This record gives sequence, C-alpha cells and structure tokens, in this order.
Amino acid sequence: MPSLTLTALEGMPEVVAGDDLARLVREALARSGIRPADGDVLVVAQKVVSKSEGRRVALSSVEPSARARELAAVTRKDPRLIELVLRESVDVLRAKRDVIVVEHRRGWIMANAGIDMSNVDAGGEHALLLPEDPDASCRALRAALADIADFGVIVNDSFGRAWRNGVTGTALGVAGLPGVVDLRGRRDRFGRELRTTEVAIADELAAAASLLMGQADEGRPVIHARGVPYDRRDGNGRELLRPKSMDMFR
Amino acid sequence: MPSLTLTALEGMPEVVAGDDLARLVREALARSGIRPADGDVLVVAQKVVSKSEGRRVALSSVEPSARARELAAVTRKDPRLIELVLRESVDVLRAKRDVIVVEHRRGWIMANAGIDMSNVDAGGEHALLLPEDPDASCRALRAALADIADFGVIVNDSFGRAWRNGVTGTALGVAGLPGVVDLRGRRDRFGRELRTTEVAIADELAAAASLLMGQADEGRPVIHARGVPYDRRDGNGRELLRPKSMDMFR
Repeated sequence: MPSLTLTALEGMPEVVAGDDLARLVREALARSGIRPADGDVLVVAQKVVSKSEGRRVALSSVEPSARARELAAVTRKDPRLIELVLRESVDVLRAKRDVIVVEHRRGWIMANAGIDMSNVDAGGEHALLLPEDPDASCRALRAALADIADFGVIVNDSFGRAWRNGVTGTALGVAGLPGVVDLRGRRDRFGRELRTTEVAIADELAAAASLLMGQADEGRPVIHARGVPYDRRDGNGRELLRPKSMDMFR
Repeated sequence: MPSLTLTALEGMPEVVAGDDLARLVREALARSGIRPADGDVLVVAQKVVSKSEGRRVALSSVEPSARARELAAVTRKDPRLIELVLRESVDVLRAKRDVIVVEHRRGWIMANAGIDMSNVDAGGEHALLLPEDPDASCRALRAALADIADFGVIVNDSFGRAWRNGVTGTALGVAGLPGVVDLRGRRDRFGRELRTTEVAIADELAAAASLLMGQADEGRPVIHARGVPYDRRDGNGRELLRPKSMDMFR
C-alpha cells in the first residue's frame, strides 16, 4: 500500500550565520531516531538556510532610493524593506497598500521578494533575504549528507497565489529529485494519452512539509519524507519556473 | 515528534454514476487495514466524486455555440469541449493555442473549467465535469462515514499556476477541517507578530495527497491522512477563493 510519511526532526536549534547546517541536520536526524534510506527527501525551511548563509541584513544599514520611498508610500511598508525588495528583484508586477509582488532576480514571482522580518530577531530591525542560490544550497546539503543516504533535498518557502487565499509551501531549490515530473506519453487507465503532462512534485512535497513546519513558534524547520513515489532524477528548482515568454498573467 | 502519514487506500474499483462512494471508501478503508481515528482526513480525487455523481457528458449530445466555435479555433480544442467549458464558467480570462483559463461558476480560476477527458472512458467521447458542489460532496461523505470516525474530507483536483510549471493538487471542497488557517495575532519565536497570516492548509494537504494519487493509471483516488497538526473546525472550499475585488491578476 503506497504511503508517504513526513516527520519533523527534533530539536533543531536556532540557526545563526556560519552554522554548519549539514551538521545540525545530521544531529537532528540521529536525535529523531530516523534511519535514513536512499530516496528519502529532506525539506528544509528557507529561513534556516538563509540564516546559516548569513543573509540577514540590518535595516539601519539600508539607504532607501527615491523609487523605494515612492513604493513604500504606496504599500505603507518600511522604505528600507522596499529598498531590499528592489535590490533582490528585476521587475515589480504589482504594488498597492500592504502588497508588493515582484519578479525576484532568480525568477520567482512572489510577494516582498521573499524577504522576511518574522523569526529573524527580537528587535525586528533586521530582514532576512532568500538564499543566494537555493539549488546550490540543496546540492551542498545533499553532498554533505551523502555518507548517510542518497537524499533528495528541497528548500521551501511560503508563497501566495494569484487567485487563492492563504500561502502554501513551495520549492525554491531542489536537488536529487525532479522539480517537475513529465508524464507526456504515459497513458491513463483506458489507454488514452494523458492531457495533464507535468506535475510539480517538488512543490507538492514542499507543501506537505509545510503542514508540519508551521509558521510561527513551532521551531520545526527540517522535515524528513519517506515514500515519495517518483523516479529519482537530479532536478532543480528552475524547472518549476514558467518562462516569461509563457507567462499570461504578468 | 510530529509526523504526518498519508496512505493510499487499496483496491478502489472503477467508479460509475450512481455508485455509493461512501460504501466504496468504507470497504477500501477496511481492506487497507487502517483503523480510522477522529481527526483523520480523507482526500478524494475529484474524478471519482464526479463519476459517482453522474457528471459524465457524451460529447455527441453537445451543440457548440458560435462563441464556442470561435474559442475552439483559437485554442485548437474540440468545440464541444469548449461549449461545456463555457457553460461551466462565468468568465474567460485567457484563451490561446492549447490553453483556456476561466472563472468557473463556483469561483475557481482554472484551465478548461476543470473538465477532463482522461480516465473517463476508453472511447474518449465523453467529458467529465467537476462535481456540482464539492463542499456538499465532502459534507455528505463525512456524514456517511461519521459512525467510523470524525473525518475531515477534501475533494482535490490538479490545478496549474500562473507563474510556475506543472500542476499541484488543490482543494475544491472541504468539510470537517479548515480550508485556511488564520494565524493573525500569533507570534513568532521572538514574540513578533507574524506577517504571514493565512495558511491554505487544505491546499497543502490536497497537494500532499496528490503525490500518492498519481495522474495516470495508478488507480489510487482516495488517500487517508493522519497527523494533520491543526485545530479541527468545519471549514469549506470557498475560504480558499480570493474575492474578485482582491484579484490583482485577472
């Protein structure tokens, strides 16, 4: 009977710049009594990856540009935060009160360029940028844990959607498993060619893991998943991005 | 250690109009050796709900309107399918070769109004509409199985996204659990108020279940989930729909 089990690793500590994330995950795996196997997937919250990679920025160090001040007035957000959003982005899709949706330098269409001010520190005077290259972060973690098992690794974050309320866990980076599975040529139960040809399995798994991570004070940033029923292939997060030429809703 | 386990129910038969879906699920639960508990969630693929509710339409019975022929020429789709799409919709957002994105009568922004021609029959001359009221379908299934356990029920389908490749499992109907969890007022680990206030947990669970359902000939339309770590509340699928007045990307 096919089954999928997700488990939150126990006792992950608060992560700070320079921490060896692979070592922390290794210790948490041992602490959690999980016996890792090839094909298991680790889903890691963007926040701890960003923190370990030193992506924390003191807002006092940020000088807002004229454009940032203008957008800050529209959105009623901190001009220094908006300045960081603009630096991380290549395009602003929408800006209105409380909302700024951009194309991040790495291609994600998302609010605030993924920059977060919760769970960063007690003072609230720091912001946390996304990892510089989440695919590389996944590859590095995968390589560092290769002596334990041939893991797939996903770095996830919470994304809003154009037409639906609420955020869902979404894959930023992927290594050791497909981002998108292509079913072209496969047939349904009646032998008909499938209409739906691509499934974003890394996003589905990122969403599943997000259920256990929580958003607030749970402190469960690493989820172990077993039973993901797809062929292993070394994919990446870029597969999940629709090229601008195919974008109908910008 | 918080964990979430999803299991595909064994031996669900091919479903046809008039089938008692609750009985089939009940038998599959027993066959699968699962001991259901209050708070478990059943995620059911839209296709089997639609089939049991008789939402199959013979294309030969459909007379395309002028508007349907026009859009069929643009999209290069069957004019009879487009006619059904238009009847199920209140607005056409985009139409181009191979793609038609509409607002379904029930508010979902989706391709083809969710109408499917795979896994419907061997001849391919039938289409399958979405259930008339997926929330009602969920409530009915939940009530019919209430003697076994206080289940949450989700009916899911695969949705495309505006800016990402691949489909993900998404909740159409919900009963016995929240569609969206509101975290407003909760605090992060440093006592700061959370910025992200709403999490679409029914969509996250719909996506997780979709991983096990597969898209092709797997025949696993019902997934049992245990360990969903949220308060039980009798939500619905409408919570997940962004009101048109808040839509920035139409």
